[in-house]
Amino acid sequence: MPLTNHKFLLAARPVGMPKPTDWTFTEEPLPEPKDGEFLVQILYISLDPAMRMWINEARSYIPPVAIGEVMRALALGVVTASRNPHFAIGDHVSGAFGVQEYALSDGRRVTKVDPKLAPLPKFLSVFGMTGMTAYFALLDTGQPQPGETVVISAAAGAVGALAGQIAKIKNCRVVGIAGGAEKCRYIVHDLGFDAAIDYKSEDVKQSLRQHCPDGIDVYFDNVGGTILEAALANIRLHARIVICGAISQYNNTGPATGPRNYMSLLTNRATMKGMLVMDYADRFPQAAAEMATWVAAGKLKSREDIVEGIATFPETLLKLFKSENTGKLMLKVN
Amino acid sequence: MPLTNHKFLLAARPVGMPKPTDWTFTEEPLPEPKDGEFLVQILYISLDPAMRMWINEARSYIPPVAIGEVMRALALGVVTASRNPHFAIGDHVSGAFGVQEYALSDGRRVTKVDPKLAPLPKFLSVFGMTGMTAYFALLDTGQPQPGETVVISAAAGAVGALAGQIAKIKNCRVVGIAGGAEKCRYIVHDLGFDAAIDYKSEDVKQSLRQHCPDGIDVYFDNVGGTILEAALANIRLHARIVICGAISQYNNTGPATGPRNYMSLLTNRATMKGMLVMDYADRFPQAAAEMATWVAAGKLKSREDIVEGIATFPETLLKLFKSENTGKLMLKVN
Repeated sequence: MPLTNHKFLLAARPVGMPKPTDWTFTEEPLPEPKDGEFLVQILYISLDPAMRMWINEARSYIPPVAIGEVMRALALGVVTASRNPHFAIGDHVSGAFGVQEYALSDGRRVTKVDPKLAPLPKFLSVFGMTGMTAYFALLDTGQPQPGETVVISAAAGAVGALAGQIAKIKNCRVVGIAGGAEKCRYIVHDLGFDAAIDYKSEDVKQSLRQHCPDGIDVYFDNVGGTILEAALANIRLHARIVICGAISQYNNTGPATGPRNYMSLLTNRATMKGMLVMDYADRFPQAAAEMATWVAAGKLKSREDIVEGIATFPETLLKLFKSENTGKLMLKVN
Repeated sequence: MPLTNHKFLLAARPVGMPKPTDWTFTEEPLPEPKDGEFLVQILYISLDPAMRMWINEARSYIPPVAIGEVMRALALGVVTASRNPHFAIGDHVSGAFGVQEYALSDGRRVTKVDPKLAPLPKFLSVFGMTGMTAYFALLDTGQPQPGETVVISAAAGAVGALAGQIAKIKNCRVVGIAGGAEKCRYIVHDLGFDAAIDYKSEDVKQSLRQHCPDGIDVYFDNVGGTILEAALANIRLHARIVICGAISQYNNTGPATGPRNYMSLLTNRATMKGMLVMDYADRFPQAAAEMATWVAAGKLKSREDIVEGIATFPETLLKLFKSENTGKLMLKVN
């Protein structure tokens, strides 16, 4: 067992895309658990678009990561030392352990996972916050009904790909918006979406009109910006717009773009609603159980994009914002 | 009885504020009802912000008024000739009779009103679409709970003034946003709002923070633009934003301004929802009955701004967009 822990601290508040100099990679002596604590060796670190919001100065739904603090991240690891009766050496656990090799925890907001049930990375994708977000944002906030038309942006992304498949399971017509021919092929041929729109080569507003001639019932938004506007221009009476993310806006240095045609909400008596997955924490177990049956039946596929080496964190994170990841992005530690 | 009808036709699609040349004031022989029809002598014509949307080329929730067509308007009148067994000479009726002195109708979407119950102008304000809009937008879309903080924009306007008073009746704390000291005095002293913010002399975002230290539960938006953004910046967890209008945007010649901080919907798990009063048509009678009890009890006051003469229509309409009306704006014909 090593005697040191390596971790990424936030060094500066990024302006636009996070730069390498916005981070400090440091070494510290391996911390020792005090009474009630345990030590987690981190195996996989989840990289998520929301991390960009956590490092802005403004408080959003949680306080920002402070300068000099270890970068916040969801992660999965194994307990290597424990002075907490509820967590034993060898237990696999997930929690917000941060971008580091080892983390101390008192067990709060930590979930045990059973590595016999699925490969470990799946607990950060389909059975992790990614899957929970897709499940609750689509089903609880979006309320899709059988036969309705559901449109998903960032449809080849970790959340979007799951949300679209869940909409198919619920007998909806599903149109995905993704960047590039390969992602479009993936969501239609591998995941079973009914249609795909390549926002890099198509006029999204026109293509939505073509693929959704009767209008959109549920729009699941992960991106914001002009794609949100294109969706608003094509919603149907009583549509529901789920605001799950706005990745196109996170690295803006100027003011964000607001949806200029938001009055489509009035003309269509439609709803735009924000969601945060942690509000559903008490229902995670039942959602995971249901999703496990879908995975077992081959109806719900997930893909992980696993990059080796914690030291790659600053550049690997950028894959999200450059739309370069294929599936749920995570770091494999050592 | 005169032998002619005077009416305003839409002559051109306005760019920005409607100009006098966007209208044609014409005379025609008085039409005669055919079988099943009746003739209405129009007494009062309702002037509403939505009229500006009806003359844009784009279809919104109803088809636009065509060039050369009589301008659409809600109005109230008396039947002067009838070949319809359900409508007798002397009946008072309200409907979308248009900006003219006389209208033919087949009775569809026409409501009889009883002039013994209230002065006629009240049937275009508190007991008309204005009142119905305030009632259903606030109560059905906004869902205010006792003790919650409700913020109303265009609070001295016809809809806003009623919505704020209804929120008070429902035991909410009510903050109104209005333009100028006199309007602010009016809503607090005459209508019983808890506080007023003068958007012409105050920083609305800062003032909202001060008047709503725990955040806004329900924001009733009639204006859009920067005031909508100021409200979004101050909403509370699970807030409801009612999109009832966007008068600040209706005469824009460039693209409308979208709310740049709409992601506040996500961080606050809030809802933004559009409403149209006609969706509630089957519940108008019960709403009017309830509002009549509030009016009788002195809890719900309405003010009408009545301008004489149909010929003043082009300039009178602009009072709405210049924020010059005090209460429900209408034309008195003759």
